[in-house]
Amino acid sequence: MAVYLHEEDLGPEVTFADGPIAVDTEAMGLIPGRDRLCLVQLSDGHGDEHLVRFARGSTYAAPRLRALLEDPNRLKLYHFARFDIGIMRAYLGFMAAPLYCTRTASRLVRTYTDRHGLKDLVKELLGHEISKQQQTSDWGAPELSDAQKEYAASDVRFLHALKERLDERLQREERTELAQACFDFLPARAMLDLAGWPEQDIFAHD
Amino acid sequence: MAVYLHEEDLGPEVTFADGPIAVDTEAMGLIPGRDRLCLVQLSDGHGDEHLVRFARGSTYAAPRLRALLEDPNRLKLYHFARFDIGIMRAYLGFMAAPLYCTRTASRLVRTYTDRHGLKDLVKELLGHEISKQQQTSDWGAPELSDAQKEYAASDVRFLHALKERLDERLQREERTELAQACFDFLPARAMLDLAGWPEQDIFAHD
Ligand SMILES: Nc1ncnc2c1ncn2[C@@H]1O[C@H](COP(=O)(O)O)[C@@H](OP(=O)(O)O)[C@H]1O
Ligand SMILES: Nc1ncnc2c1ncn2[C@@H]1O[C@H](COP(=O)(O)O)[C@@H](OP(=O)(O)O)[C@H]1O
Repeated sequence: MAVYLHEEDLGPEVTFADGPIAVDTEAMGLIPGRDRLCLVQLSDGHGDEHLVRFARGSTYAAPRLRALLEDPNRLKLYHFARFDIGIMRAYLGFMAAPLYCTRTASRLVRTYTDRHGLKDLVKELLGHEISKQQQTSDWGAPELSDAQKEYAASDVRFLHALKERLDERLQREERTELAQACFDFLPARAMLDLAGWPEQDIFAHD
Repeated sequence: MAVYLHEEDLGPEVTFADGPIAVDTEAMGLIPGRDRLCLVQLSDGHGDEHLVRFARGSTYAAPRLRALLEDPNRLKLYHFARFDIGIMRAYLGFMAAPLYCTRTASRLVRTYTDRHGLKDLVKELLGHEISKQQQTSDWGAPELSDAQKEYAASDVRFLHALKERLDERLQREERTELAQACFDFLPARAMLDLAGWPEQDIFAHD
């Protein structure tokens, strides 16, 4: 179990096990049109985490990352996919779908709380404490600190296990189909964000 | 061109031309769990409108209406589909999809206004004035007034023509795919309304 840092694309030596791949991103902020994509984190659920860093002025070509994440036969796991797929679409130019979103699944089954942060899920469903201290750090810094690398890696470390727990709950509450419909719409929701409808609920009457 | 009133189901003599069918509903209010479905209006775009009325205490069986609206090969046109498909699902027990929603399409192309009411669309895109005076009338009354029948019929009269205009705009602005993704999600959005998420934007972070 180790954390690997790559620059501008996955190294050619990296291989991933078949099955879903956990993905997270870090950026300079929450506004894709302003805040550049700095990091993409990946885990196949077998212990290693890979961090792909993009420097200021990057061309964001990353053909190996693209091949992995664009693969229509590879399910991508996210926590709040809407942001990650949007910023990757904006900078890397591809839509990293099909997907599963643990935050969306949590909203559909953990109706007894309004706390759907990754930290809350990992604590309640898996019994681990993760630190969110580096969440708002400078991801554009020339060197990432050890704390940043550990934080970035931990953001993809638990998504496979969370999916398992959440899938059980979705099934128990008979909301699996509803969740799938939400996951399927998320790429369009992210495209609406990029196209200029970031705040509006397109389905609301008013 | 005439308006036909039916009780509890379409009459067996009614036939519709092939192609999309315009659908609207009237209910005692906007809350499906409280406000019963009173009327379903239909038009195949060739001039006649059919109104199907449900009395208080109705069993909502309506097998002919169901066959028409459940048909997966028949596109249904709505203005604000979310409400209509939700209340039909709640009372009649079927999901009247696949669908096209003129209000959703309007939000995607008429970005220069926040007026997306049916009246606004019909006026701007078709140059007709329709009255919305009966919108908030008592649709559960034992006898519908002539004004109510005319209002109910006019709500499905223009949807085919609106779709044509809106499709041109969607194509011009390259938002046809985005619109289709929204239409495809609307049945799930309506199911979320019925399942207890009426107000919340399930895709929002907070
Ligand atoms: N409006 C918003 N408020 C807070 N976080 C948001 C957000 N939009 C996107 N995010 C992202 O959503 C992710 C999940 O947050 P949470 O754990 O609170 O559910 C965070 O990513 P990171 O954790 O990768 O920094 C954060 O960057
Ligand atoms: N929150 C809401 N506010 C107003 N109208 C709503 C609504 N939710 C559903 N509707 C319905 O949306 C339909 C379209 O409204 P509008 O023309 O303003 O876009 C109206 O149907 P009817 O016109 O069949 O009564 C109305 O009943």
